[in-house]
Amino acid sequence: MAHCGAYNAFAMKSVYVSGIGMTRFGKDPRPLPEILCEAARQALADSENPNVEALYVGAMNPEEFTGGSNIAAHIADLLGLTGIPAVRIETASSAGAAAVQAAFQAIASGYYRRVLVLGGEKMTHLSTQVVTRVLAEVIDPDERRCGATMPALAAMIAEKYRQSFRLSRAHFEEILCSIALKNHLNGSRNPLAQFQRAITREDYFSSKWVATPLRLYDCSPMTDGAAALVLTREPTGIRVAGIGQGTGPLSLGARSTITSFQATRIAAARAYQMAETDPKGIDFAEIHDAFTPFELITSEDLGFFTPGQGGDAVLKGKTAADGSLPINPSGGLKSRGHPVGASGLAQLVEAVKILRGETRTEREFRRGLTQSTGGLGTNNLVAIVEQCGGPVVQNPGLPFVQEARPAGKPEALGEDASEDGRVVTFTKLHVTPEGFAPPLLLALIRCGSGQTIIARGENTASLKIGQKVSLRRAGGVCLFVAKTRFQRVHEYVNRFLRRKVAADFKDPVALDSGV
Amino acid sequence: MAHCGAYNAFAMKSVYVSGIGMTRFGKDPRPLPEILCEAARQALADSENPNVEALYVGAMNPEEFTGGSNIAAHIADLLGLTGIPAVRIETASSAGAAAVQAAFQAIASGYYRRVLVLGGEKMTHLSTQVVTRVLAEVIDPDERRCGATMPALAAMIAEKYRQSFRLSRAHFEEILCSIALKNHLNGSRNPLAQFQRAITREDYFSSKWVATPLRLYDCSPMTDGAAALVLTREPTGIRVAGIGQGTGPLSLGARSTITSFQATRIAAARAYQMAETDPKGIDFAEIHDAFTPFELITSEDLGFFTPGQGGDAVLKGKTAADGSLPINPSGGLKSRGHPVGASGLAQLVEAVKILRGETRTEREFRRGLTQSTGGLGTNNLVAIVEQCGGPVVQNPGLPFVQEARPAGKPEALGEDASEDGRVVTFTKLHVTPEGFAPPLLLALIRCGSGQTIIARGENTASLKIGQKVSLRRAGGVCLFVAKTRFQRVHEYVNRFLRRKVAADFKDPVALDSGV
Repeated sequence: MAHCGAYNAFAMKSVYVSGIGMTRFGKDPRPLPEILCEAARQALADSENPNVEALYVGAMNPEEFTGGSNIAAHIADLLGLTGIPAVRIETASSAGAAAVQAAFQAIASGYYRRVLVLGGEKMTHLSTQVVTRVLAEVIDPDERRCGATMPALAAMIAEKYRQSFRLSRAHFEEILCSIALKNHLNGSRNPLAQFQRAITREDYFSSKWVATPLRLYDCSPMTDGAAALVLTREPTGIRVAGIGQGTGPLSLGARSTITSFQATRIAAARAYQMAETDPKGIDFAEIHDAFTPFELITSEDLGFFTPGQGGDAVLKGKTAADGSLPINPSGGLKSRGHPVGASGLAQLVEAVKILRGETRTEREFRRGLTQSTGGLGTNNLVAIVEQCGGPVVQNPGLPFVQEARPAGKPEALGEDASEDGRVVTFTKLHVTPEGFAPPLLLALIRCGSGQTIIARGENTASLKIGQKVSLRRAGGVCLFVAKTRFQRVHEYVNRFLRRKVAADFKDPVALDSGV
Repeated sequence: MAHCGAYNAFAMKSVYVSGIGMTRFGKDPRPLPEILCEAARQALADSENPNVEALYVGAMNPEEFTGGSNIAAHIADLLGLTGIPAVRIETASSAGAAAVQAAFQAIASGYYRRVLVLGGEKMTHLSTQVVTRVLAEVIDPDERRCGATMPALAAMIAEKYRQSFRLSRAHFEEILCSIALKNHLNGSRNPLAQFQRAITREDYFSSKWVATPLRLYDCSPMTDGAAALVLTREPTGIRVAGIGQGTGPLSLGARSTITSFQATRIAAARAYQMAETDPKGIDFAEIHDAFTPFELITSEDLGFFTPGQGGDAVLKGKTAADGSLPINPSGGLKSRGHPVGASGLAQLVEAVKILRGETRTEREFRRGLTQSTGGLGTNNLVAIVEQCGGPVVQNPGLPFVQEARPAGKPEALGEDASEDGRVVTFTKLHVTPEGFAPPLLLALIRCGSGQTIIARGENTASLKIGQKVSLRRAGGVCLFVAKTRFQRVHEYVNRFLRRKVAADFKDPVALDSGV
């Protein structure tokens, strides 16, 4: 039963967690290098052997957030470790988890015995508009040009999820509210969380809209913070049992589905396979809830719940701290905070604390899963950590279906061209990036030509998924107008008359031209 | 004799080079992702098996150079490889080589069988001042605040080298000129080089000063370009025999020596040890000659020549394409160009071409070394690639001396405080960063208190290494004035008189106050 061996199928050396460290997340007046060094020193002090041979730093964009570059060598120098190899890893907002994966591979190869992994970011010294713009650089450039931001696209995904699984607006809001309340309640017990206050239904429903259907309490905050981990070949009580990474299309329009993240499913399949387990073998999970609907969707992508059922699980308390599968017992990104480069690593630090028994839990947990999302679900990682010697469910892993590869990004509508389309999903964005006045109506539209693109609404009238719109391109951006009932009747009559005339005169051209 | 085994001391799986690719370096009108994709497609087409399992992208600062982020997932998507793990690696200007190292470790661990490694940067669409500012973000923040740039600090290192090895100014200029002429001659034969024209002594000596003693032809250009490599577990004709990385202090003032790069020596020791060879076992080398003196110093740090003798080797033609140890047969960064994130990988592509016999050489080469420098020698990598089955010199590797760890960065002079110091090295910077008018006199100064700092000169009179200066701090920057002969005589007389008076009156306070 006891199992603490190598990753059989891969014949790799085992990798263990030695020390952990994490700063108090929130507004931190210190420069980023100092924040990183605090977490690093904690992890080194907590490690049985602090003589690390290399440094891995996960950071998303210290260049634009803080104006500094060459951060890996800088941190090695500040820590008094000058000389050791130091490398910075970046996969957008999952950089911290990606740093763990690179370090894992380096140890598993036999190249290093012991390495220090850091993740951190500093964001709160900048305005929301500047941070929103920098974060938005991770999304597709054409979609960004429309004014789309991370919250705008997350909101569109949420709206589509609601419609796909035929959830009423009120029921869906209850689900999102429950996730927010659960994570804030969990965060209220986490001394390192940014928000240490439970929130009420009233707090949630009175919070302002960011991008419909997402309110302020559906979005993770701007945060400063860092987390650290010492990984080692030398056996400790905690082992990294599996780790996997996957990517997905950059553009929302290029995805075959937007209510599931391909990148998470690929990453999870690898992690489960390495750890020789499956979703049933997981005792608790830390999930990238940058937005509440991301926790919902990811809990389904990880195989914990069937698609569309994640919401019920939340409402029934299954994912609460005392539920059958606690999700984000630390408070998640929502309440612990989201210093982008740190989050993926902070999840692992929280998981290790639980496995070690340093965080009070309802029962003993032996195996935890962490999932980190880079960009709009474009570069995701899943890791599984477990107590050494714990029982292992032998299982071939999740059956994994590779999503059809998109046939490249579709060509955007030409300048001054126009065509008709249908709304796939939409949002009204209330917190806009620099240079865009709120509110901004954005929609994902399936064009008549088969392309799917993000466009900006010219009127902000009520819009529905499936509604017909007219599209045109101006100034490099796609604009749409929702067709009014009068327009639609007018078009119908026109088409009817054209067809009638064509049939009378047997004109094949006119017969084909109906939309 | 035949040797193509694992890295004995490390028991790691062997890693081989399959495909290679590289764009024509220079001014490239395409966006960075397209440039990277061209190199990637070449490498995949050149590879026996193009089914790569992961993507590694080395890039220094695409965020500030091009305004895009999340580049690894973006490139995977553009290449039609959506789904595979993709990670971006950064170690300042050695990012391309660091990406190779991370990919090497991932394959050596058994995690992947085959990966695509890319390196690239786009810079020529920006002004020299903007590029200089972005590049300068890699150096110490305090030194940058003084107006120091990469060329300024490289120039100070060069001036100190000249003085340390007692080379006359004319002799030193001949050495630097010879390196520039050699690399431009080599580049003239490289169809992918940015500059494909040999230069003359007259060209060199009539080129304008960038930062004394460096002229335009001592500095690598701004370049767009990308390089690619497929690494695999499956044996091919070329093996990555060794790879190592090291770091050095960020601040020039914190280094125990500035005429040698600790980071290179650490990286080389590991690479030689893994490859079970030493400098004598190397047939040719590609060295990071962002500045001509860096080629000189690095050729000594790699153990090819004893310290101070690198110049003689150049003047005698030893490092020429037909010499006993060709250095930068591809033209180096000087002539091939320096798209920062690409350079470390481009060196390996050039080395593989030589080993494969695709680049015409004077004789057959079996083993090449590449050395890449991150920042001001703060994060350097060394790789050794060799023909499989070739003879191997069995050797325990370079005796390696670890530099004493700096005791943290010294505290800078307090605001309005003043003290005396001596010039360690200096430069007159003619191409200044945004916000600084040329010329800018910068010096590294050893203060009376034992600190070593960069300061800006208030007069631009002729300065010498060892000269006494007065230092003061204003607006967060250290300023110095070279003491005139009159001041020095005046100080001497003053001190003499004070001592005489003190001796007469037996005043111990006055006796101690002499400078």
